[in-house]
Amino acid sequence: MTPFDALIGTELELVEKALQQTLTGSDLEASVNALCLNMVNAGGKRIRPAMVLLCAKAAPYYDPERDQDRAVKLAAAVELLHTATLIHDDVIDNSSLRRGIPTINSTDGNHAAVLAGDYLFTRCFNLLKQLNSLEALGAISDTIATLVSGELMQLKKEGSLDLTREDYDYTIYCKTGALFELSAAAFAVLNQRPHAEIEPLKAYGRAAGCAFQIADDNLDYAADSKVLGKEAGTDLADGRITLPVLIALERSTGAEREDLVQAVAQDDFAAVKDAIERTGALEYCAHEALLQAQAAKDALAQLPDSPYKEALALLAENAVKRGH
Amino acid sequence: MTPFDALIGTELELVEKALQQTLTGSDLEASVNALCLNMVNAGGKRIRPAMVLLCAKAAPYYDPERDQDRAVKLAAAVELLHTATLIHDDVIDNSSLRRGIPTINSTDGNHAAVLAGDYLFTRCFNLLKQLNSLEALGAISDTIATLVSGELMQLKKEGSLDLTREDYDYTIYCKTGALFELSAAAFAVLNQRPHAEIEPLKAYGRAAGCAFQIADDNLDYAADSKVLGKEAGTDLADGRITLPVLIALERSTGAEREDLVQAVAQDDFAAVKDAIERTGALEYCAHEALLQAQAAKDALAQLPDSPYKEALALLAENAVKRGH
Repeated sequence: MTPFDALIGTELELVEKALQQTLTGSDLEASVNALCLNMVNAGGKRIRPAMVLLCAKAAPYYDPERDQDRAVKLAAAVELLHTATLIHDDVIDNSSLRRGIPTINSTDGNHAAVLAGDYLFTRCFNLLKQLNSLEALGAISDTIATLVSGELMQLKKEGSLDLTREDYDYTIYCKTGALFELSAAAFAVLNQRPHAEIEPLKAYGRAAGCAFQIADDNLDYAADSKVLGKEAGTDLADGRITLPVLIALERSTGAEREDLVQAVAQDDFAAVKDAIERTGALEYCAHEALLQAQAAKDALAQLPDSPYKEALALLAENAVKRGH
Repeated sequence: MTPFDALIGTELELVEKALQQTLTGSDLEASVNALCLNMVNAGGKRIRPAMVLLCAKAAPYYDPERDQDRAVKLAAAVELLHTATLIHDDVIDNSSLRRGIPTINSTDGNHAAVLAGDYLFTRCFNLLKQLNSLEALGAISDTIATLVSGELMQLKKEGSLDLTREDYDYTIYCKTGALFELSAAAFAVLNQRPHAEIEPLKAYGRAAGCAFQIADDNLDYAADSKVLGKEAGTDLADGRITLPVLIALERSTGAEREDLVQAVAQDDFAAVKDAIERTGALEYCAHEALLQAQAAKDALAQLPDSPYKEALALLAENAVKRGH
């Protein structure tokens, strides 16, 4: 299922079990559980849980007997949080396709999707409570706040061409980097490890997440809906100015620039895509993603050598190859 | 401002300060803070924070020096949670008026309202984190899950006339009773008091909350929009079958019953209101609310006599006099 099965296959299966179990409840909750499970099971690639587990097992103090269940719960909680934010994002963006299946808002309405997202937040907190760690709960709560900030930044700058590269970097940190940062550092936070150990893990997750998001933003101008598992061209349609457009604008002058500005304003996907191809923006962005992946790998230096560390490097490399 | 100013006026002012402070952040968050503050400041009556504070100060072990700040933080957290659920409820119900002002979904769209609600959840957790209590965090998280369950129950039974009295009681417990239950017990939970002390407090809050909700459901058929601070007749329009309708149905037979069923199906507010008046359903419901208020007062028996205990009895009595 993942290239890491030999290292964390057992734990990933336990994560699946934990996800199913946490979404099995009373009769009353049967309908919301079904909605959530449908989305949880729809083939997300479990990159975040894999990162939690690999970072846990890469730690020299990891003790399978004592720590497996705790790492699995953390990994499942992170996936629940991720899925909750996807469900709310789909309401916000009015999306109809996610992970290759219809979104909850499209099949059951915004009301059900808002509730399903809230419900997954509570399921996530419920799992974390079992770990008896205020630190882990605090880290998750802060991450949700950052995710919300990123969405707000995006809404505020919707369709605006005065978005700077700094704004873009901040937005992708909030919407993707922060949750990867949490995934990488969660086990160390849970174990109250010193700052000097936690920071490089956060840097690893953050950079890998940003690599991932840049690659994903590229894909929206490079792939068709079938490969993407969601509609292509949605960034433009939703007024999200991403790095390919920023670079294409930066590399256009005179009439070409004016035409591009016009095309963006009119959501003219074909014309924007042409400009992106003409200016070589996708290649530039692919290189930026690679730089982030490299930064992620560099941040692993502190970890003792192990197959888990190698897998984490591979995970960062893979991040740039394909979107969510 | 409240009839309890002499007892908890100082603490209620500190709650207001804590609410403002927790919604003052970075530039990025300025717009969401403004949206949330607008709703937080729009004249909610702070019944839940008042309950938190009165229950705290009614406790024989309450020490002002040590406990004031903790009780205030709990009270503010409960109000943030309440406001978050109101904002999401307005998205779910597509409401345009709340606390006498336009809802966030009506002025800024569903996307902003979903995010604003999520953001308030994180602000609530942030306040609670400062209390260093897994118990309090756990209680809040469970309460959110119950609130979501209640909304789901409501959605599931939307417009359905096979709603039983049991269903109704469960729904109002979830949507209102649970948060009052938390408000009453929060300080005792924070202080890890024994079960035998916490349970009667929960029973008090639960019954007061249900009294409050029954009175509120009555008001939707008895008041006009100006008194209500939101549109009258919305329960029927949104397909929520509440106690006045249940009772009117129970007390109607033959053609009258068929007419009422028809009127409910067609959202014919005037006809439903007529049936409710004809059957004396509002009087019955008012009596049910009084019974709940009495149950709440009975649950206070365990507390030592104090002005705070008297105020809690008054709070339960007041609950039936006016809605949210």
